[in-house]
Amino acid sequence: MADFSDLDGFRAALAALPDVDTAAREGAAERNSQLTKPPGALGRLEELAQWYAGWRGNPQPKITAPQVIVFAGNHGVAAQGVSAFPPEVTEQMVMNFQHGGAAINQLARAAGAKLDVRALDLERPTDDFTQGPAMSEQDVIAALATGWDAVDESADLLVVGEMGIGNTTPAAALAAALLGGDAADWTGRGTGVDDAGLMNKTRVVSEGLALHKEQGDGIEILRRLGGRELAAMAGAIARARCLRIPVILDGFICTAAAACLEHTSKGALDHCVAGHLSTEGAHARLLEALGKEPLLALGLRLGEASGAALAIHVVKAALECHSGMATFAEAGVTDA
Amino acid sequence: MADFSDLDGFRAALAALPDVDTAAREGAAERNSQLTKPPGALGRLEELAQWYAGWRGNPQPKITAPQVIVFAGNHGVAAQGVSAFPPEVTEQMVMNFQHGGAAINQLARAAGAKLDVRALDLERPTDDFTQGPAMSEQDVIAALATGWDAVDESADLLVVGEMGIGNTTPAAALAAALLGGDAADWTGRGTGVDDAGLMNKTRVVSEGLALHKEQGDGIEILRRLGGRELAAMAGAIARARCLRIPVILDGFICTAAAACLEHTSKGALDHCVAGHLSTEGAHARLLEALGKEPLLALGLRLGEASGAALAIHVVKAALECHSGMATFAEAGVTDA
Repeated sequence: MADFSDLDGFRAALAALPDVDTAAREGAAERNSQLTKPPGALGRLEELAQWYAGWRGNPQPKITAPQVIVFAGNHGVAAQGVSAFPPEVTEQMVMNFQHGGAAINQLARAAGAKLDVRALDLERPTDDFTQGPAMSEQDVIAALATGWDAVDESADLLVVGEMGIGNTTPAAALAAALLGGDAADWTGRGTGVDDAGLMNKTRVVSEGLALHKEQGDGIEILRRLGGRELAAMAGAIARARCLRIPVILDGFICTAAAACLEHTSKGALDHCVAGHLSTEGAHARLLEALGKEPLLALGLRLGEASGAALAIHVVKAALECHSGMATFAEAGVTDA
Repeated sequence: MADFSDLDGFRAALAALPDVDTAAREGAAERNSQLTKPPGALGRLEELAQWYAGWRGNPQPKITAPQVIVFAGNHGVAAQGVSAFPPEVTEQMVMNFQHGGAAINQLARAAGAKLDVRALDLERPTDDFTQGPAMSEQDVIAALATGWDAVDESADLLVVGEMGIGNTTPAAALAAALLGGDAADWTGRGTGVDDAGLMNKTRVVSEGLALHKEQGDGIEILRRLGGRELAAMAGAIARARCLRIPVILDGFICTAAAACLEHTSKGALDHCVAGHLSTEGAHARLLEALGKEPLLALGLRLGEASGAALAIHVVKAALECHSGMATFAEAGVTDA
């Protein structure tokens, strides 16, 4: 169970996150140099394997128990017409997840991952952030704890994602509040709003920023402009770090939630890789600000952890190569 | 068994390749529009699913039997010092494939694919193409037939790749002869030659081009400048088309071999997608000339079918989503 009872407790947990095991990472680098391939020929797979080994504290690990968690929440700002879909779709999609019919069900199964779904108070949308903070301190603590407690201690790779009609709007507001720039720099078309919808959405983000920006650290910004499923993703990412479970970030909304942690405690996302580049508005800009190069760029913009779930295959394959290949000596192959 | 006994017989097979099933592709497009996601939100996964459905003649297929074939050959030009590794490594790596120690063993297993390895007359390298044609007509027919016959009739996705010390040199020569430009435009560092090695390699390609370019169609160019494993890949790709098995192309060498088919019979690669962008020299340029956008770009440059094997996950996942997701009507989700 989450061992924080207020936001300062969560901040204290962030300040005390464990660091990478450099001995394991160096052991992995040494092994990598002996594998039967030209140096560097596996490209990013080699970097991924060493990064993963360092976080797991094991120079030759494999991935056998990935976990995908989809958090769902509803948003007061949805009433302002920021989405192409009506708010009831959040709950309908949660049912679809539970019945196995959504994209993430297929993608998690294909990746050999356990899928968990956590719906957060769908009947109680957050408050409209153009009128006041989206969440009370009690609300955001509960959402962070839901995320924290959803992580399996036995998982060895974590993917978090979200469902929440309207939630590219809080994500854009968070990104702008954390990283600067105008509302228009960070606001995109989400599930597919038209030009008038995009103008309306940009106005909503702009009003939220005017009311809340420069009002504290990343956690306070998350409370004021975020949403329950965004806070839950942040809580899960922090918990994974405490458990030394590497994380694959999903798209724009997930990355915006994660950025609240990095803003609060620099280095808090060192155990995370970017799973993919979404076509949602400013995802590329957000990843660049965090120094994360996406593994995939396949034009996805679905959320639900879909892009990150697809990237599980890449990270798993990196470790299969790293830990399963023969060395030059073992295979009797002449080195260059 | 291959039903051609000379190069004109192979050319006749290329001229009579079957075309896509447009009804199945349209059926897949119709299904795609009903799935529980915003239109286009799965990006390239949606395109892949419809492309695959069209080639399989089934609007709702899945992938259950992918096959990976690695062809190995040796090259007369290797004696000119075009590789960082000695020629005996080709055979050593074939042993490594057979013992399960190479990258492709791990990647094929992770992708749920059967792996076959075909070594082509390793004790008999092709002739040095700076002195004359790399292969006789009999040699290239035998290599095309080896590839043709290696494809499982029951496979539902094919990946072909190669191992052959020195083989980025014939690949560069093929690309230049097929597409124009100088030797330097197409010659890269392969497994990692230094600046002097790259200059030497460029000279070798240039000499080959001077002797053989504009000497016939893609098949004749393949005979003069290619190699046995390259011809075998071309034969397998053509055979897959006859069997309506979609193909994922691997890196620079595989793509150069495939380009010989396209040069000979326009549209011969319509059943192929580019699995990844290799960092080997001119792969990006070659893919652009063929109009193929790579699925992955992870900095790989290993060959062995490694990048394409990794891309199996993407194509499989596309079909899992397409064929496994619920429609809006089935899931009771409100459409936009």
